[in-house]
Amino acid sequence: MAHLKNKRPLILVSNDDGIKAGGLVALVKMLRSFGDVVVAAPDQSYSAMSHAITVRTPLYAKVARREEGLLVYKINGTPVDCVKLAIKKLLGRKPDLVVSGINHGTNTSISVHYSGTLGAAREAAISHIPSIGFSLLNYSYDADFTLAAQYAERVVNFVLHNGLPKGTFLNVNIPDGQQLKGLKVVRQCKGHWEEEFIERKDPRNKDYYWLSGHFCNLEPEATDTDEYVISQGYVAVVPCQIDSTNFELIPQLEKMNYEL
Amino acid sequence: MAHLKNKRPLILVSNDDGIKAGGLVALVKMLRSFGDVVVAAPDQSYSAMSHAITVRTPLYAKVARREEGLLVYKINGTPVDCVKLAIKKLLGRKPDLVVSGINHGTNTSISVHYSGTLGAAREAAISHIPSIGFSLLNYSYDADFTLAAQYAERVVNFVLHNGLPKGTFLNVNIPDGQQLKGLKVVRQCKGHWEEEFIERKDPRNKDYYWLSGHFCNLEPEATDTDEYVISQGYVAVVPCQIDSTNFELIPQLEKMNYEL
Repeated sequence: MAHLKNKRPLILVSNDDGIKAGGLVALVKMLRSFGDVVVAAPDQSYSAMSHAITVRTPLYAKVARREEGLLVYKINGTPVDCVKLAIKKLLGRKPDLVVSGINHGTNTSISVHYSGTLGAAREAAISHIPSIGFSLLNYSYDADFTLAAQYAERVVNFVLHNGLPKGTFLNVNIPDGQQLKGLKVVRQCKGHWEEEFIERKDPRNKDYYWLSGHFCNLEPEATDTDEYVISQGYVAVVPCQIDSTNFELIPQLEKMNYEL
Repeated sequence: MAHLKNKRPLILVSNDDGIKAGGLVALVKMLRSFGDVVVAAPDQSYSAMSHAITVRTPLYAKVARREEGLLVYKINGTPVDCVKLAIKKLLGRKPDLVVSGINHGTNTSISVHYSGTLGAAREAAISHIPSIGFSLLNYSYDADFTLAAQYAERVVNFVLHNGLPKGTFLNVNIPDGQQLKGLKVVRQCKGHWEEEFIERKDPRNKDYYWLSGHFCNLEPEATDTDEYVISQGYVAVVPCQIDSTNFELIPQLEKMNYEL
């Protein structure tokens, strides 16, 4: 990586909205003040791809832009593919930070499981690299990311100086609009989706179903959740972990243990 | 659902290897002794699709088989799509249990994040339905699922009688072969993947990368992990949760809190 200076932090950027998304552009612009930036992002939108990986077809990485302190690859894969390929083949050294986003749309609560933005962040955490996924509560292509990037800068600065424990990433959701009240570290809200499918007939009179629906907060009274604080105008930061074990349940389940 | 008897448990089955997979057939055969079975499975293999959902195209559900106590749908979607569509549109009532698999290949450790089999189980847990994902340590199309189905029966029996806490699912991995030693409830092993990409040139002389590599156990000395017990010939049962919050980290991160 002779084109990158040696002593500045190396920051890998990905997303799931694709290489041309406004949220990615705003994020890269902000991150360049911190260090050398390599973007490895999908060549198209891969929303809702979660932690999916491409196992049946080969991946191609094309250099889309190269200048002092910035190198941009577009890749025909999922967000997790992009992070894997960058870390293992493209970067030449382990990055100091991986940042994903800024997603066009929130990823609070259980959306952490569906989101490709958070898939990229989780993949970095699996490789023991500090990582952050950013999302803005505005789904439009032309969303204004100015204020979101200012808050993202604050979080990036914190993580570059303090690090994160291995196997951990941050899920950061930012309310839309010009009036934000601050930032709060909170937990993942319990929730699910309701009225999930539109049911119609296609031109050949066959029934089809199209995913739709709305999010339902299952604990609207709780004030320490990501859903609550973004509804109050705060940026929500949730520390997330790779380990999905429910440790409390293990003793109760041990009566299932069986020795031949 | 007039074709299903009223008082027997209703069991929804999905997988990520597709509707014709031997692991699904063995699982359905076993489950029919417990209750009425509805299969909602992908029309093709959707391995490594994680918790991905289909948002840009419509879904079709085609009845592939219908007989007393068994109804089989094939769906042009991911495992999570199949579970969502079945629960919200096809079943008519909430199932008593969702079972996914039996996967052709293990899903221990961090594979819980990549696996479509576990995506289906996690989706049921989000809907507060007890669920189990089963995987066999044998990747071949013609794997023998006889013994795996016997152990799966033991776990299904336990969950139907004892239930699971809301937001929890079981990740069950079964060693291959005719000599199993029993079953142990354990935690998710720490691990990652190494040498992940084969790098070659295509017929047009362009570099491509193809995902490959091998799993690396990061705590080989630990004896309470899924990786360890399956290496010792035991079926590994890991209780997994929807909540990915790292609660221990919240107090340390609270110095990031910020009020305008």
